[in-house]
Amino acid sequence: MIEGKNLIAGIWESQSDSIKFKTVNPKTQQELAVDFQQATPDQISRAVEAASASFPQVSELTFSDRIRFLECIVEELESIQPELIATYQLESALPEGRANGEFQRTVDQISRFVELLKKGTFVKATLHTAGPDLRKMLAPLGLIVIFGASNFPLAFSTAGGDTISAFAAACPVIVKAHPYHAGTSELVAQAISKAVTRCDLPHGIFSHLGGQSHDIGGQLVSHPAVKGVGFTGSFAGGKALYDLAQQRGQPIPVFAEMGSINPIFITESKLQSDGALAEAIAQSVTLGTGQFCTNPGLIVACDPSGQFDLAQKISDSIRDLELPPMVHSNIQAQYDKQLFGLQGNDKLDKFFKSKTCAAAIGSVSAATFLSDTSLKEEVFGPFTLVVVCNSSEVLLAVAGALEGQLTATVLGESSDATILKSLLSQLKSKAGRILFQGVPTGVAVTEAMQHGGPFPATTDSRFTSVGTDAIYRWLRPVAFQDCPNALLPDALKDENPLNLLRTVNGEFTTATL
Amino acid sequence: MIEGKNLIAGIWESQSDSIKFKTVNPKTQQELAVDFQQATPDQISRAVEAASASFPQVSELTFSDRIRFLECIVEELESIQPELIATYQLESALPEGRANGEFQRTVDQISRFVELLKKGTFVKATLHTAGPDLRKMLAPLGLIVIFGASNFPLAFSTAGGDTISAFAAACPVIVKAHPYHAGTSELVAQAISKAVTRCDLPHGIFSHLGGQSHDIGGQLVSHPAVKGVGFTGSFAGGKALYDLAQQRGQPIPVFAEMGSINPIFITESKLQSDGALAEAIAQSVTLGTGQFCTNPGLIVACDPSGQFDLAQKISDSIRDLELPPMVHSNIQAQYDKQLFGLQGNDKLDKFFKSKTCAAAIGSVSAATFLSDTSLKEEVFGPFTLVVVCNSSEVLLAVAGALEGQLTATVLGESSDATILKSLLSQLKSKAGRILFQGVPTGVAVTEAMQHGGPFPATTDSRFTSVGTDAIYRWLRPVAFQDCPNALLPDALKDENPLNLLRTVNGEFTTATL
Repeated sequence: MIEGKNLIAGIWESQSDSIKFKTVNPKTQQELAVDFQQATPDQISRAVEAASASFPQVSELTFSDRIRFLECIVEELESIQPELIATYQLESALPEGRANGEFQRTVDQISRFVELLKKGTFVKATLHTAGPDLRKMLAPLGLIVIFGASNFPLAFSTAGGDTISAFAAACPVIVKAHPYHAGTSELVAQAISKAVTRCDLPHGIFSHLGGQSHDIGGQLVSHPAVKGVGFTGSFAGGKALYDLAQQRGQPIPVFAEMGSINPIFITESKLQSDGALAEAIAQSVTLGTGQFCTNPGLIVACDPSGQFDLAQKISDSIRDLELPPMVHSNIQAQYDKQLFGLQGNDKLDKFFKSKTCAAAIGSVSAATFLSDTSLKEEVFGPFTLVVVCNSSEVLLAVAGALEGQLTATVLGESSDATILKSLLSQLKSKAGRILFQGVPTGVAVTEAMQHGGPFPATTDSRFTSVGTDAIYRWLRPVAFQDCPNALLPDALKDENPLNLLRTVNGEFTTATL
Repeated sequence: MIEGKNLIAGIWESQSDSIKFKTVNPKTQQELAVDFQQATPDQISRAVEAASASFPQVSELTFSDRIRFLECIVEELESIQPELIATYQLESALPEGRANGEFQRTVDQISRFVELLKKGTFVKATLHTAGPDLRKMLAPLGLIVIFGASNFPLAFSTAGGDTISAFAAACPVIVKAHPYHAGTSELVAQAISKAVTRCDLPHGIFSHLGGQSHDIGGQLVSHPAVKGVGFTGSFAGGKALYDLAQQRGQPIPVFAEMGSINPIFITESKLQSDGALAEAIAQSVTLGTGQFCTNPGLIVACDPSGQFDLAQKISDSIRDLELPPMVHSNIQAQYDKQLFGLQGNDKLDKFFKSKTCAAAIGSVSAATFLSDTSLKEEVFGPFTLVVVCNSSEVLLAVAGALEGQLTATVLGESSDATILKSLLSQLKSKAGRILFQGVPTGVAVTEAMQHGGPFPATTDSRFTSVGTDAIYRWLRPVAFQDCPNALLPDALKDENPLNLLRTVNGEFTTATL
């Protein structure tokens, strides 16, 4: 049952004098019944203190302890799946298929981290016994604050990859729930809290705070006991948290995934040969009403004759589409406002809208695009801008002019080797993931995924927020020199009791010493 | 020959109107003959532009190219060793043994990175072919600016671990030479520049700028084309650069190693049993006139009776020591000023100085130490403060009150297991390296070293500045999805042409696909 309370280290607290807020069904604009309580400064302080106090114990949880915890979270989530899916749909207006898909992705993500913990190699145990006996491994960073994302109420929220990777790293977590889906978040927090109790873990390991005010995030990120931050959302939000974290007495890492226009580059020959291209792009642009972080907001097409008219073709594919509303009326309003601006922008050569006015396509010459920085800004939603280039050189110039991106997609034929090579050389410095087929939406949760990219796509291009490598955001190396075997962490002991693959004097091995 | 010029992308430039400065022999206070030119804003801009323009080519240097470059640097350094050692001694007043030792360390460090490149596994090639074909590896970050350290004219300066790790990562480097040993730095830069020419590398890969003004560093760190910064020096200097880097339009990583008091904790039984302890500590405190980053500035001893008087015993060992002067009169003056303050500080129970007034030892009760934050500040030089604890609990309280450190040392007996375990639990969050024998001075260059620690010891505890893992500061992951084999970097190709150990579908293997 959703009660609108805040969870402070195991206790669901109700404070009658707290500020209240409600969630809204974006389809009907009706408010849901529950009064959600905004966390008070006192509750925030107590959550941080309890988390910080739990760290010595949490940081020493064994791999098995953490596996059991994650598995219990999955069990608890599965036991409330019907209520969760119903609430998700009420708060997001996303369809049941998407809700179930995201639920499954959330559960699958947790399983990937269970597998990671079963192997254990991620701690990078490194032993060097010639000279002083030095043994190094990755250790948890400390208390981590996670902000739920608006566009993924499950997979990038309360039990999403950020929270789960931090738990897998043996860090306590405080989740600041996204206010647009406070009920969904509370149900997930209940599941996590039950798992904490079942596993007999210190309750400080998890707290869950609600509210609409930015002050809550500000207070959390500024607290000296917080050691790291995960965020998925807008540039303004992410950058504000980043700046706050740098202004602290002790600066801390902030991993903010802030958005990207995910350009798709199309060579002339590909444009001519691939009849299914316009339809594929249309589907990627409109998937989830354009609210994926990897939504392609820019299509850079080499069309020297100017006759191909890709924008028109994409537009044909979206004309009759009916899309669900965006996750919140505020986001929808921002999207509508940006579209209105683009529609009246005489720099665009063409502008198409779907019949229901949900999706839209613009078209602009490369020369205009290059001279107008406002056209490079992300339009969050089912919109894409086609940039028409009259040569491969111009295509490269557009690539060179772009800022950091989560993804860049290069669509060409094998005959395009020269231009593809030049593009690739440019894009390696611009994007975290470069695709050569298909569309950028769809982010596989594997150890080879990179979901991150140079600023302003994220605040730290050296880490990923999707895939098992996401755990490295919450770890730091600690070396032990001439440490008695009994005092060493198990991962570094002579007898290798965890049977880990370790680096011993430069060789990967599971051998004992 | 030292000419005092600046190296801008392969050209040693002389600008008659530039600001001039000189280096000083700290032993004689005599100025050396050379007029060193301060780099002009125009030279700085051109160095950055050339480095940035070289990046596409530098970033694609093969492992073999980089190995040859590093090996040529070693050859060029060895060919000027006599002139280099002579200049080093004139500018630093450090003795010839130390000069040759540091030269050898510098050369050995380069060899470690050559070995790393020969293996190549550091790029972490990760292939996942189930689902979309995803292949990820580490790629160079871009142009890196390195600041030479005052206390290590060779090993932490122009061809030190920072520069060499950035070259190994395939990043162009601009070195801002430390003005205290501008001549030593210029000789090393000449060696690197010759290696660049011999290897036919783009000249933008390396520039070398001199000057005494902080504006040079400021202009470099603020330039949009710079992608990362390495620094070893004072807290004030490192934090200023860090703050500048965070205020840019695009924030960049700054790895500043800013100092540490490197506490040594001694249990009661160890204090009683180890007769050689005072002498070992005295030697570590005075090594290199106390100018090692890992110099132990704090000795926390459990001495319930208060009768052991460790400070007196250390003092006995330093009384007759004659130490060379510190590397520069400014550093010496700062040290002398701090000592003067401590000598007059009535909170100290005892204060001893060596006959030549170079080294000094203070003693204070734990209660006083805990109540006075000024006593926790680093005194850079051959000084240590002994904190006398009347119980193990007080020892733990002192550990808990400390800030982030490069190292912490725990000296106990096997009978001290309980207290050692509690200390270790505390110190894991406080230090990058924890020692259980000996003294913290001496930092081995191996893959198991961690030279870094929580703020304020460094600005990023997740990385090390010593050892081969230092390369990870200059790399970021890039993933390729469904990329044609011919376009993939060699490290990710089906046929594994570099014969790398890679992660393929979760398994470490050198197999082809």
